[in-house]
Amino acid sequence: MSGNTFGKIFQVTTFGESHGNAIGCVIDGCPAGIEITESEIQKELDRRKPGQSKITTQRKEGDQIKILSGISDGKTLGTPIALLVFNEDANSKDYDHLKDVFRPGQADYTYQLKYGIREHRGGGRGSARETLARVAAGSIAKKILKEKCGTEILAFTEQIEKVTAEVDLDKLTLQKIESNIVRCPDEKAAQEMIVAIEKARDEKDSVGGVVKCLIKCPPKGIGEPVFDRVPAELAKAMMSINATKGFDFGSGFAATQMRGSQHNDEFCMQGKEVNTKTNNAGGSLGGISTGGDMFFRVAFKPTSTIGKKQNTVTKDGQETELEAKGRHDPCIVPRAVPIVEAMAALTILDLWLRNK
Amino acid sequence: MSGNTFGKIFQVTTFGESHGNAIGCVIDGCPAGIEITESEIQKELDRRKPGQSKITTQRKEGDQIKILSGISDGKTLGTPIALLVFNEDANSKDYDHLKDVFRPGQADYTYQLKYGIREHRGGGRGSARETLARVAAGSIAKKILKEKCGTEILAFTEQIEKVTAEVDLDKLTLQKIESNIVRCPDEKAAQEMIVAIEKARDEKDSVGGVVKCLIKCPPKGIGEPVFDRVPAELAKAMMSINATKGFDFGSGFAATQMRGSQHNDEFCMQGKEVNTKTNNAGGSLGGISTGGDMFFRVAFKPTSTIGKKQNTVTKDGQETELEAKGRHDPCIVPRAVPIVEAMAALTILDLWLRNK
Amino acid sequence: MSGNTFGKIFQVTTFGESHGNAIGCVIDGCPAGIEITESEIQKELDRRKPGQSKITTQRKEGDQIKILSGISDGKTLGTPIALLVFNEDANSKDYDHLKDVFRPGQADYTYQLKYGIREHRGGGRGSARETLARVAAGSIAKKILKEKCGTEILAFTEQIEKVTAEVDLDKLTLQKIESNIVRCPDEKAAQEMIVAIEKARDEKDSVGGVVKCLIKCPPKGIGEPVFDRVPAELAKAMMSINATKGFDFGSGFAATQMRGSQHNDEFCMQGKEVNTKTNNAGGSLGGISTGGDMFFRVAFKPTSTIGKKQNTVTKDGQETELEAKGRHDPCIVPRAVPIVEAMAALTILDLWLRNK
Amino acid sequence: MSGNTFGKIFQVTTFGESHGNAIGCVIDGCPAGIEITESEIQKELDRRKPGQSKITTQRKEGDQIKILSGISDGKTLGTPIALLVFNEDANSKDYDHLKDVFRPGQADYTYQLKYGIREHRGGGRGSARETLARVAAGSIAKKILKEKCGTEILAFTEQIEKVTAEVDLDKLTLQKIESNIVRCPDEKAAQEMIVAIEKARDEKDSVGGVVKCLIKCPPKGIGEPVFDRVPAELAKAMMSINATKGFDFGSGFAATQMRGSQHNDEFCMQGKEVNTKTNNAGGSLGGISTGGDMFFRVAFKPTSTIGKKQNTVTKDGQETELEAKGRHDPCIVPRAVPIVEAMAALTILDLWLRNK
Repeated sequence: MSGNTFGKIFQVTTFGESHGNAIGCVIDGCPAGIEITESEIQKELDRRKPGQSKITTQRKEGDQIKILSGISDGKTLGTPIALLVFNEDANSKDYDHLKDVFRPGQADYTYQLKYGIREHRGGGRGSARETLARVAAGSIAKKILKEKCGTEILAFTEQIEKVTAEVDLDKLTLQKIESNIVRCPDEKAAQEMIVAIEKARDEKDSVGGVVKCLIKCPPKGIGEPVFDRVPAELAKAMMSINATKGFDFGSGFAATQMRGSQHNDEFCMQGKEVNTKTNNAGGSLGGISTGGDMFFRVAFKPTSTIGKKQNTVTKDGQETELEAKGRHDPCIVPRAVPIVEAMAALTILDLWLRNK
Repeated sequence: MSGNTFGKIFQVTTFGESHGNAIGCVIDGCPAGIEITESEIQKELDRRKPGQSKITTQRKEGDQIKILSGISDGKTLGTPIALLVFNEDANSKDYDHLKDVFRPGQADYTYQLKYGIREHRGGGRGSARETLARVAAGSIAKKILKEKCGTEILAFTEQIEKVTAEVDLDKLTLQKIESNIVRCPDEKAAQEMIVAIEKARDEKDSVGGVVKCLIKCPPKGIGEPVFDRVPAELAKAMMSINATKGFDFGSGFAATQMRGSQHNDEFCMQGKEVNTKTNNAGGSLGGISTGGDMFFRVAFKPTSTIGKKQNTVTKDGQETELEAKGRHDPCIVPRAVPIVEAMAALTILDLWLRNK
Repeated sequence: MSGNTFGKIFQVTTFGESHGNAIGCVIDGCPAGIEITESEIQKELDRRKPGQSKITTQRKEGDQIKILSGISDGKTLGTPIALLVFNEDANSKDYDHLKDVFRPGQADYTYQLKYGIREHRGGGRGSARETLARVAAGSIAKKILKEKCGTEILAFTEQIEKVTAEVDLDKLTLQKIESNIVRCPDEKAAQEMIVAIEKARDEKDSVGGVVKCLIKCPPKGIGEPVFDRVPAELAKAMMSINATKGFDFGSGFAATQMRGSQHNDEFCMQGKEVNTKTNNAGGSLGGISTGGDMFFRVAFKPTSTIGKKQNTVTKDGQETELEAKGRHDPCIVPRAVPIVEAMAALTILDLWLRNK
Repeated sequence: MSGNTFGKIFQVTTFGESHGNAIGCVIDGCPAGIEITESEIQKELDRRKPGQSKITTQRKEGDQIKILSGISDGKTLGTPIALLVFNEDANSKDYDHLKDVFRPGQADYTYQLKYGIREHRGGGRGSARETLARVAAGSIAKKILKEKCGTEILAFTEQIEKVTAEVDLDKLTLQKIESNIVRCPDEKAAQEMIVAIEKARDEKDSVGGVVKCLIKCPPKGIGEPVFDRVPAELAKAMMSINATKGFDFGSGFAATQMRGSQHNDEFCMQGKEVNTKTNNAGGSLGGISTGGDMFFRVAFKPTSTIGKKQNTVTKDGQETELEAKGRHDPCIVPRAVPIVEAMAALTILDLWLRNK
């Protein structure tokens, strides 16, 4: 009933507050006999980690992953895999001024409202730090999809504030995405994006943007009508990530301005395989995958924590002002790229296992 | 595992093929003691029904709802409620030409791929006719939300092809929405939308659009972090509707171009209640409802079934051409309005029951 | 959350009150391409039906099954299968005297307590009439297990009151079970059981007993540790049947008096297959099936509805007396045999599908 | 789909192999604001721990519990609670001789069969060591039930081999249960039970027995018909414990020999409350709790691991012999008492939360 589990077969339950003892997850339903090492998982975690570049927060967090169960002699046993990162000794005093005040745009107020109690240190469970557990689990999902289905998942920054990249999905590679700190394969746009982020940061402000994700060679026939369609499950997965505001799939919102005769992907034969001439569908018809490439966009709002002074209220109903202290990301989009990939991998793997 | 159940507490399982014996649903988890009549349900079904106006399909379907269980002497018993609509004797011969051919943009190909068998008559389970069961269940959810929480759900057509309405959400009423056949409360835009739809129809083509939905006075504190957030559950619900391509919540995709200082909704006191000066959040922070109004948009593609000739292939891998026969909606957006409302009601009611 | 769904992959949701419009179920997750006819389902229903013999209730119920969806041209589509039996026009006036009084041993009191409302006619949802939906769904599960796994499920009456049958499981056949009205393959015991039942009936009383069930050639490797073990899932399935009081598996309660050296089934080789010399385990080790035959027992209490006068109370807290009117089973065990088989089939099929 | 989660609202997922890094669980769905300390949990763990007395295994395991998340400043946050026990450096070499051989009565063979891989050290996930995570979670469930509902759960050893205790449930206390090492409140029977266990141990053999459990003052109206009845959920919970072979509830198997007129609990008024004169039902009618005390029995087989020589086979299909080395429990029943209590608490709490 509570919402900390994702997936129906490859079930990931995450736990941990930002400044508690540890953050981690348990994966139940991972097939047996898969080779997994801590260093493979660590590699994906390092892409999400703070302090990577001049445009992310300068906080340093070690985030060393530890496998507690479910893997023996380097192979999965078919039993639950527990993954853990111990939180380093964060200076909790830094958060004393937030004990009784609600930060605008954050979950402080709603956690207090819902649970009658909240961990104010670092945002507790509402912190994006929770997503490291998703990235850890996602790294295993990605590996299984690659090995068993030949599926590859590649996300990148498509837009930051008003700057939009031009990207040919057919030529997309991980190397191009990772070639700059903003994770945008359009090098020219990337530079403008960095400028936009730095400008916002210098003005004690923040910016948002769009992550686009490509799923190459997804398994055919996955998606469970009528409710658990591929785009529906992906939408939920993406909208469960902190700071997301929108999702569209394939032709997306642009489809609303097209005619049926333009939008329909006509079927054709490619050798002995059924194919389509265009891919407005984004690889899903009636919620079931065709086998064609999938792609979708995820909208991220500008980071809520900003240095500028803002009006707010206290737990006791007093109006007050707040200026964020400490070091925060002026834009979370570049660090969100591996999170989008992880959630996409968890979604597709789970649907594939459901279809078997 | 299969995907025909929606909700975790107020669980709705729909069944039925377009041209089978019947379409219906079972609702398990409806609270006891709620007054429900067939005519209340019928009223919502009639809003979804084909043949309502000159811009919808001219097919006539009776769609008379029947309550089979769970309600006695006009009150719910707390036991499963089964609702049924018998399919009228559709002329199945009309579909003989579709037995072996895949309609572009429809689920024919993927159902065949996934199940190795498909009901070709009227699209079988892939038909939007299935959504009548959702509207039936949703009408009960709507009533409970109204009675128990004072929540009202109002959806309307915001955009058809290139025509976008200007609508003040504070003044939105059901009466205004129902005042024209396109279900758009901006009368001027509504007339242009009707023209656009008629033009497409006359050209044997189709158009898409956007439904916007307002949830007035939603319950506070609902939404289950970290995965089952309000916007995540709504996203899934909406993307599970036939022909949807995108979803955004509150500020939505527009947020990606805003600064944090613009986007953050500052908290203020309104009497003894915490409130916000703006509502970019759309009534959800960290995935938990603040109690403020929620609103979101859903993108619909142009109807796949069109009269224009299209290229396609047969089940046996032969290339062929297809022209849709019969009477189809040139735009499904106006009839989608009650479906969006139903899915919103099912989502919000379920989250409210989960939070109790 | 509500408890009207059984199974995780082959999910059966039952609905319907004893004297409502209809009783039925929806099966979601049935594999596509299975041949199913109404008459196959009807055959199993007829084994459960009242009025079969002199030792069952003399009520006549037609119980004609109707397939509403999920099956086309005699084959499953992979979509939800809805099955329905319309209730015949029962004389509801017969139940007027039960409107405000709680029958001892029945669920009248607890339904009122839980839901604040109850359908008093025929026990409403608490009636064993609900199990016809289980038998209908179970008949499909049985067929799939037989066709796909070669598994056969045979239950029989092992004990009625103090009479216990001697049955060699290796020689058990459906024919022997169905050779007498009490469904006991030990003919001598069967006759004594019939005498015991008739004696109880003549004394306006009732008797209980034990159903034993054999699962021949179950699939290997099914059962999901650590909670969803084969015996755990079967225990739940059986204890969900009306009037059950106990369950034991393999050696069962007798194991508590054995030594480890007696009880352990030693492994041996049978050709190239691992086998065991004895089968105290009942075909499950650590909750996972070995492939060996499974067997278990289910205890049924004596029928609660009896003609003898009993003390009880009314809804308003008045003490009163009650004598059951109408025609009731003096022993429900013989009619419970197909219900036990159905629930066993649903459990094993679901676990097999979960293991794929 | 995998079976490592118990409960639908108070959801407990356990993880960990006997000789892996750690054993633990994540509880999702624990209400916020409950006071919980590590020492309260530890107290229950210590009741389950090996090496407690002369009749248990002499292995020493520290089993120190650690709270990783979900609790801050001594109170639950409403977020997932992760509990962990690190495994001490067990001498894994002790298990080298079991790498390729299947122990009779254990899950070695079936884990290999199901997963194609198994952790042979200490039985891996099949080890009863997993139940420490259940006891840890159960200790929280017990506390909540006590505080919120006034419910108390008391289990004890009712039978060891042929020795059966006489226990008056009305006078049962924790103190009496804990007054001897076999956890039997009938002191005379307790001494005979200890003799029986010691005799079996000295003969390199093992014995089984029965645990009886009393649930005093359970919440009224819990249990979710038609499948998730109280006795059905308890049956599953108990049959999910290692080494269990049977379960019966209230009058249990004895009911099968009773007449309806004896078995029915007649209703009477006790002041303004409805009550029953007898309690054969065990506090549940139609699967819903009446509020009366519940009681049930659980059958445990004799410990599988014995010192006597047994025939078995190797992974490669060779017949061989095996004598268990190391120190094992000659009877697991006394240590099973807190496990039965824990599973009962998890079941009742979950059903109570489902009923809210």
